[in-house]
Parts: sequence; C-alpha cells; structure tokens
Amino acid sequence: MSGSGANPQGPGLLLRPWKGPALSTPDALGGDADGAIIVVMERLNNPEQLELQVGVAKVSKYATSESGDTLEMTERPHGGLSLVLADGQRSGRAAKIISNLVARKAVSLLAEGVRDGAAARAAHDYLRTHREGKVSSELVMVSLDFVTRTIVVSRNCHCPVLVVDREGLRSLDEHSEAIGLYERTKPVITELPVSPDTWIVAFTDGVLEAGGHVCVTFDVAALVGDFVTRGEGNAAALADTILARAMELDQQRPQDDMSVLVLSLVPAQVKDSARRLTVRFPLPPF
Amino acid sequence: MSGSGANPQGPGLLLRPWKGPALSTPDALGGDADGAIIVVMERLNNPEQLELQVGVAKVSKYATSESGDTLEMTERPHGGLSLVLADGQRSGRAAKIISNLVARKAVSLLAEGVRDGAAARAAHDYLRTHREGKVSSELVMVSLDFVTRTIVVSRNCHCPVLVVDREGLRSLDEHSEAIGLYERTKPVITELPVSPDTWIVAFTDGVLEAGGHVCVTFDVAALVGDFVTRGEGNAAALADTILARAMELDQQRPQDDMSVLVLSLVPAQVKDSARRLTVRFPLPPF
Repeated sequence: MSGSGANPQGPGLLLRPWKGPALSTPDALGGDADGAIIVVMERLNNPEQLELQVGVAKVSKYATSESGDTLEMTERPHGGLSLVLADGQRSGRAAKIISNLVARKAVSLLAEGVRDGAAARAAHDYLRTHREGKVSSELVMVSLDFVTRTIVVSRNCHCPVLVVDREGLRSLDEHSEAIGLYERTKPVITELPVSPDTWIVAFTDGVLEAGGHVCVTFDVAALVGDFVTRGEGNAAALADTILARAMELDQQRPQDDMSVLVLSLVPAQVKDSARRLTVRFPLPPF
Repeated sequence: MSGSGANPQGPGLLLRPWKGPALSTPDALGGDADGAIIVVMERLNNPEQLELQVGVAKVSKYATSESGDTLEMTERPHGGLSLVLADGQRSGRAAKIISNLVARKAVSLLAEGVRDGAAARAAHDYLRTHREGKVSSELVMVSLDFVTRTIVVSRNCHCPVLVVDREGLRSLDEHSEAIGLYERTKPVITELPVSPDTWIVAFTDGVLEAGGHVCVTFDVAALVGDFVTRGEGNAAALADTILARAMELDQQRPQDDMSVLVLSLVPAQVKDSARRLTVRFPLPPF
C-alpha cells in the first residue's frame, strides 16, 4: 500500500481542499518499496527572508518527578533542524527510559544525515529488538530540511499534528502505529512547503486527553486556530498557551505527562542571521 | 599529573581566593589514572527552587553560509542537561563537518549516560582516528548533572570559560589542548556547585578575537561582569549582548564563526515546573 500512488495526500487527510501540486519524492524520504504513507505538499521558493521559530513546553504527570516524554533536537548535517518527541508507554521512570532510548536513536541517526523515514523505522526496529516487542512508544518528528526544502512531519502516534497556513487549519491525523510492537511499522510522513505564516503543532496524549477524567474534551485545534488568527504571539507563546489550558483542564494536576512542540515559519524579525536558543529548566529540590 | 592532589583547584585557576571545601570525585567524572585535571568546587543543597536558564547565540563568519561551530544539547538520562559546543578547525563547510562530527559523538555519549570526562576523551579519540590526527577541533561541554549535583565544565579549548557567582568573577583558563591531534588528550574539568546567581559563559575564538584585525581587544570578562552586576538581564540577553559587541568590533562582518553559550542558575521565576525551549533559526535564501 504505497501512498505515492493515485492519491498521495492520503484519504481523509485534509480538512480543506489542497490546491497546490502534489509532488511525491519517496526516495528523498526513505519511503520506498515497503510503503510509508507519504504526503508531499507543494514546494516554494523563499523570496522573503524567513525564520523558523520553535517553542516547547513540557511538564510531567502530577506527583511524578520525571516526565515519560522526551524531546530532543539536533542540527541536520545537510542543513536544517530536527525535533523529535517521544512518549514512552506508561509514565515515570520506566516510560522515561523508553522515550529516551527512542528519541536518542532517532536523533542520532538524523544527526548523521539519515532520512526521516529511515530514522523512524530504525527507532522502531531498535525498540522492538531491545524490548522484544513488549513496550511501545509514540514518536513524532518534525524537521526543517534544507535539502528537500520542506518541513517533514513523521508521525507514529495517535495524536494529530496540527498545521496552520495561509489557507487555514488542517489536522494531520491519518492512522499511524506507535513503534516497538509489531513488525514493519512505518511512519506517516507529510511534507509541507517552507512558506511564511506556517504553524505546526504537535503534542503528546497528556495534552490531547486533558480534562478527560472530568469528561471535558480539549479542542486543541480550536485553541490553535484562535491563537493564530489573533496574530499576536509566537511559537513559544502558543506552546505555553496550550500547556496552560491543558493544565487547567486537569486542575493543575496533569493526569499524564504533557509536552507541546510548536514550530512557526515567519518573516525574519531580526535582520541579523544569528541563530538563537533559549532553555528554561527548573531544578527539582536536591 | 593529576589535579586531585594537593591543589585540586589547579595553579592559577582562580582569580579570587576560593573559600569552599574542595571535593575531588574523579570516579564520577571519568577522571582516572590517565589524569584529567579535575577541579571540584563545593556542593550545595538546593533549599530554594532554582531554574537553569540557557541562552545561545551564534553567527557564521562573514560571507560564509555555514558556521564551522556546532552546538548540540541533550537531556542526561540520569537527570540534567548537557550543552556541547565544538569549533572545527578553519571555517565553512570543512569546519562544519568536523565540529558536527565531534559534537555529535560527544552528545550521543552523554545521552547514553557516559560521564563528561569520558565523552570528551572519546570525542578526541574518534576525531583523531577518523582524521588520522590531521584535523583539530576545540570542544567545550557544560552539564547540569543531577547525580553529582554540580555544573560540570569540560574544556578542550584555548578560550576561557567565565564563571560569575556571588563571590565574583573567575576565568577558567587553565591550559587545555584542542582535540584530534595528539595522543591521550584529556579535558580540563571544573565542577561548580549548583548555587543561585551563578553564571557560566563559554564562547568560541571568533568572539575572543573579535576586533583583532583592527588591533582592538574584546574584554569579554569586563562585559560579563558589568552585565551581571546590573542585574537586569537573563542568559539569552547576555548571549545576545556578547555577540552584538563582538559583531560590532568586527564591523558587522565577523572574521570567524562566533558562538556564545550562557547558562545561569537563578531562583525559579515561574512557579510551574514546566521545561521550556525556544529556538530562532533564520533560513538562508533558497
């Protein structure tokens, strides 16, 4: 079942009609004979100076000292940036070990120049071998790839990835399998054009299911749509807003590890070419 | 020559007298019979809630599209965070490949739980084997280590690492060798207590030598001292201030790749326990 056939965008993927030409580049992504579903959107040139902004916010489940989610970032050797978010099965230390193992494997391969599709497959094979198919992890990777000139979203998770651009909001929610359990699991990959005013929002199930224990549903897409429409905040502010709302729905006692990853492509705001990174990392009491 | 002898702080290391007890833990750091110089400062408990803030700013040499410096970050599997800054010999693509190789090796080992001293040695051995001792790289690593409850600074570089705490400013400038060239190169390691109002500033030689072509010297320590004394900015602002001054000294045409890494331990400003990451990554014209 190859997604590079008649309808490379995959059935039911788009919330709005897609107008651009669809280009399929399975080779570039490692989507080959064994058939990852690959969705490739239009590529654009980059006439105006753009900047990628990333915002991440994460908390651990209430009363656990360690989040079972792991986020890692690396520069791509052929240019660009990759972010990897893994959510290990269960929570606490056991989940952390799994998500760390998965994120570390994926990110170290990406840092060596391995294609996203191959890195996700390798992370799966590695976890399945290491834990004999008994433990799963969700995995989402978002890469800004200077070679393909696209944003590459690879999903092995049940949480959707939300995309907002000038044409509206879409949910990348095609079915994909968590890694680690079954043979030949593959990612669902979507390529997005490098285009101004594009937002990509990924999160783990602690966010998706926030409020669930009091039977409230968190409509993350509505919050994201409102935020972007207001046009007042950046990626970090959106990540914080989503996390704050999820925490509120769980009465400030997160029922599961919560992680939010937001990327936005915006016209460059500072005209120097400096790359910048900031981290805030609260220390536990020693 | 082991630094864990009579004077573990090493000769000439401190700009001011060191009052705390000195604890040497070579085992914890991988400083063993082959004798890294290890300087261990006092450990503190963490009575108040602290937060580690990180700020990084980097630009490439004027008229080169790619910085020869690589910065990578990873979470430590036993708790904490490591930042690795590598400056490959020369500039441009060749330097980038080297610094990427070195940073990637170091960070992947740290992510597996390897001690900082061993990771630096391994990065050296790897580069020396891979490039037959013909290419060098500078390497500085700064880790917040929850196990040793210290900040671990590992230097294989000629640039100093500046430390400001409540007792004043020091320069960690003991002689250390770049990696990749000679047999048995080892890092100079300094452990600092996890203590509020501590700042750690590392940078590559493009910063240190800014202004050099017009015979101006950049006194980074003076700038850092002033900034911290004013008490108005955070780690990101200090990194930006240092980079801006270096760019100014080079008339906005950096004569070499410039990277600045600042860490600060400050009382937690937001009372949630969320970890946060932001990135700003300007895209080159496609």
